[in-house]
Amino acid sequence: MKCRVCREPAIIDIRRHNANFCADHFLRLCRDQVTKAIEAFSMITPDERCLVAVSGGKDSLAVWDILLDLGYQADGLYLGLGIGDYSDESGRYAREFAAQRGATLVEISLPDAYGFDIPNGSRAAKRKPCSACGLSKRHLFDQAALEGGYDVVATGHNLDDEAAVLFGNVLHWQTEYLGRQLPVLPARDGFPRKIKPLVRLGEREMAAYCVVKGIDYIVDECPMAKGNKHIGYKEALTAIEATSAGAKHSFYFGFLDRASARFQAEAEADQADLTPCTECGSPTSTEVCAFCRLVTRAGGRLPDGDHDTRLDAWFGDHVHPDPVVDGAFAGDPDDRDDPDPDPADHEPVLVDLAPTRRSPKDARP
Amino acid sequence: MKCRVCREPAIIDIRRHNANFCADHFLRLCRDQVTKAIEAFSMITPDERCLVAVSGGKDSLAVWDILLDLGYQADGLYLGLGIGDYSDESGRYAREFAAQRGATLVEISLPDAYGFDIPNGSRAAKRKPCSACGLSKRHLFDQAALEGGYDVVATGHNLDDEAAVLFGNVLHWQTEYLGRQLPVLPARDGFPRKIKPLVRLGEREMAAYCVVKGIDYIVDECPMAKGNKHIGYKEALTAIEATSAGAKHSFYFGFLDRASARFQAEAEADQADLTPCTECGSPTSTEVCAFCRLVTRAGGRLPDGDHDTRLDAWFGDHVHPDPVVDGAFAGDPDDRDDPDPDPADHEPVLVDLAPTRRSPKDARP
Repeated sequence: MKCRVCREPAIIDIRRHNANFCADHFLRLCRDQVTKAIEAFSMITPDERCLVAVSGGKDSLAVWDILLDLGYQADGLYLGLGIGDYSDESGRYAREFAAQRGATLVEISLPDAYGFDIPNGSRAAKRKPCSACGLSKRHLFDQAALEGGYDVVATGHNLDDEAAVLFGNVLHWQTEYLGRQLPVLPARDGFPRKIKPLVRLGEREMAAYCVVKGIDYIVDECPMAKGNKHIGYKEALTAIEATSAGAKHSFYFGFLDRASARFQAEAEADQADLTPCTECGSPTSTEVCAFCRLVTRAGGRLPDGDHDTRLDAWFGDHVHPDPVVDGAFAGDPDDRDDPDPDPADHEPVLVDLAPTRRSPKDARP
Repeated sequence: MKCRVCREPAIIDIRRHNANFCADHFLRLCRDQVTKAIEAFSMITPDERCLVAVSGGKDSLAVWDILLDLGYQADGLYLGLGIGDYSDESGRYAREFAAQRGATLVEISLPDAYGFDIPNGSRAAKRKPCSACGLSKRHLFDQAALEGGYDVVATGHNLDDEAAVLFGNVLHWQTEYLGRQLPVLPARDGFPRKIKPLVRLGEREMAAYCVVKGIDYIVDECPMAKGNKHIGYKEALTAIEATSAGAKHSFYFGFLDRASARFQAEAEADQADLTPCTECGSPTSTEVCAFCRLVTRAGGRLPDGDHDTRLDAWFGDHVHPDPVVDGAFAGDPDDRDDPDPDPADHEPVLVDLAPTRRSPKDARP
């Protein structure tokens, strides 16, 4: 098995590329694929400030690492979710990486700042843990980027993630989610742009990237995610990829090329009529936004109002001198009532059994 | 486990209905679901003549049985494909069923009439067996219905089939196939309407239907279908259905309700510019239609021209006194160059490796 580029011994084969790579050329491949994604979707420019959503897993550490290697201004934000040992350990990996790279890591603790953790909070709020967690992350990453004066929030979603989310959205034909499942969500009404620079790279490649680069990361899946439908969607697509190399890539990029635009009008209509949350000022289609409702139901402490002073404290001197907005926001599609693009809460469809009228034979004499 | 309707002991549970049924009420459920599909999609009226595409498997025998029970005028057409013992056995089941029900079964032998069988013909034509078979079936069922004066061709595609085909089309975002994946393809330019009355019933239900009704059918999958991607798509969806009862139903009917129309303009555009095949008169986008090209490459005998006298012979006195068309047809979407909605021929997608330009760091001094 030889490297496609230099013919030296290869360390990884990538079937959908029909190619093998040595360590050096594999790392270059990863950077090149990120560069390609960034350019194809106009994700970020070198003079913009980027906040990377860091979980301590392979994807978020790899995307942070690659953005830094490519010369982008990228700080990390780690959100402590209070999921026992899992959170302790994942936070440690995030801190270790930041220290090694000399990069800036901001930390927010959900229990300390908002008075609830995901396991107990989701139970109290009668919400699936992954749903409560996703909602909290989106809300707090947005808020933090805003307060910190960042132009862009980057997440570590890879091709496997995006293909699995797309599969879930297609299985349920969630047309408004389909309309905004893009590698870039543009900034609007003061909200930062959101980008997914790893969309051209698979899960297996990101694990290999971290191993080759000597980046330690939390290997275990989050214990709360057990039985999450998203994992089932990933497994289904992985089984198909095993016999059809490139299936995930053509599913996701085929969607972007040939189907996505057909759903966008709906996604935009869906974002109309948002007003500021009466608790925190975030845009919402109801009086109180989904995050503040979660906090209340979870028995936590609500944000301090339009300007969340706790976020000021976390960012300290990272706060941008000219904040992108100050106070009222409107229009972030991710902060709707049920903003989770992975509809994990679906109940079985109970199919109506009754015929609408009798058969022709019954109607005959 | 009690019947939902009469509380007598149940013989089957249907998880997506969250209900169990005794034998009688299960049969009624099947008939009711067919009635509901027929009405919802205006498939057929009692005064129309229907030709059922019969393979000898559970689905085609069940749909024929149910259509007869509901009082529709339904004859069967069995196509001998020359797949060794499999074809011999499946033909026997079709004949036995017809004899038991006193129904009319027309038979066409591909080897006898066109001089090739699927195993050797597809090899000679360098075409996947399922692709050659599907193409031959569609062509000959259409032609036969036309010559026999039938208004409608009914096939035994069930919910599992349709969901799996949809999954394949969505995985590849085959937009023109998505635009015409409907439970009814309307008649056009003299071609019969095509209907799928079993779209509200699953594979397991159709097997149970045949068992309860005492209908013997060929249980084995076609030996040529081994490794067919369609089977992989079915397995993937079945794994999802196992944890989310109703997933297949909501995938397929959600598509029909909320997505299908978004692809229809393309499907229609795709059907423009068809001209009669110079060999057989069937509509085609090339000079010679896909079936006649297959026959030639497979080393078989071409049809006799615009009016296929072999079809007259098969139908004998079933030929309609006022044939729907006589000669030139145009516009059947199923007779295109590669009309198989299950794109089994897809090669691995080789993803372009080169970046479009250099990273910002590279561009710096």
